Amino acid sequence: MASSSYSNSPCAACKFLRRKCMPYCIFAPYFPPEYPQKFANVHKIFGASNVSKLLNEVQPHQREDAVNSLAYEAEARIKDPINGCVGSISMLQRQVIRLQKELDATNEDLMQYTCNEIMQSTQDGRRIMGIEEGSSLGHGFYYPSLWNSDSNCELGYHRGSDNN
Amino acid sequence: MASSSYSNSPCAACKFLRRKCMPYCIFAPYFPPEYPQKFANVHKIFGASNVSKLLNEVQPHQREDAVNSLAYEAEARIKDPINGCVGSISMLQRQVIRLQKELDATNEDLMQYTCNEIMQSTQDGRRIMGIEEGSSLGHGFYYPSLWNSDSNCELGYHRGSDNN
Repeated sequence: MASSSYSNSPCAACKFLRRKCMPYCIFAPYFPPEYPQKFANVHKIFGASNVSKLLNEVQPHQREDAVNSLAYEAEARIKDPINGCVGSISMLQRQVIRLQKELDATNEDLMQYTCNEIMQSTQDGRRIMGIEEGSSLGHGFYYPSLWNSDSNCELGYHRGSDNN
Repeated sequence: MASSSYSNSPCAACKFLRRKCMPYCIFAPYFPPEYPQKFANVHKIFGASNVSKLLNEVQPHQREDAVNSLAYEAEARIKDPINGCVGSISMLQRQVIRLQKELDATNEDLMQYTCNEIMQSTQDGRRIMGIEEGSSLGHGFYYPSLWNSDSNCELGYHRGSDNN
C-alpha cells in the first residue's frame, strides 16, 4: 500500500533531495520516510526527474506498481551493475527451458510405461482368452487355454470334444 | 560486438545529445549511429548521465553487456511503463512454478507406474515360481507351476517324484 502518513515529516524523496515536501508531492505516497533506501536506489539508477516523469505518465492507481517495479530494477542494478534484473530474466529463461526438457522427457517415460502397461494388459487378456496359442514363456510349458486344442491340463477347462 | 566504426559520423548518443563525438567517447562503442533508438530508449529511462556513470563504474570488457541489459530494460519500460521488465520476471516465475508442479505430478505418476510394474513383475515371478500356490485368476483354473503339487498338467513340467 502507498503510505498516507506524509503530513508530518518529508517523504524519503524530498528528504533525499533536501527540499520541502509539498502537499500532493508526487513521490510522497510511494516513498515514505521509513524507507529512505528505496528512493536512494531509484534516484541513483533512474534519476528523480525520470521517476517523476514516469509517475506522471501512468494512472494514479498504477503508480504504486510502477514505483515498486522501478525499485526492484534499481536494487537489482545496484547489486549487479552489469546485468541488473536482466540477469534474473536470463536465469529464469534457462530454468524454464531445463524444466520443459525435463517435463518432456518424463512425459515420454510415462507414455512408454503407459504403452507397456496397455500392451501387457492386452497380452495378459489374450493369454487368458487363449488367443496366443502355442506361446511359450521359455519355461517348457504353455499357459493353459480354454480353447487351446493342445491343452490337456487337469487343472484347466476341458473342451468336451477334445478327448472324444 | 561493440561497434568500432565511430570515426566518421558521431555515435547515436552524441548525435542525440547534439554534441561533438570525441575520440574515446564512452558511448561510441556501444551506441553506433545505425541504431539511434537504442540510445534514445536508455536516455529516456535512465538518463545519459546515469548511463555514463554506470559505464565508468564497470570494467571495459563488461560495458557491452551492461549497455545491452540497460537497453533491454529501457525498451521493456517503454512498452510497459508500469511493470517494465519486472513483468517478464513475474511471468517467468509463474511459468517456473507451473512447470515444477507439472513435473512433480508427472514424476509422481511415473513413480506409481514404476511401483506397479515392480509389483506386477514380482507377482508374475511368484506365479512362475509357484510361490502363490492355490492362487486363482477366477477363471476356474490355476496357473501351472513347476513346484505346484496340485498341478498335473500335461503341458507343464512334471516333478519326477509327483506321480511316483
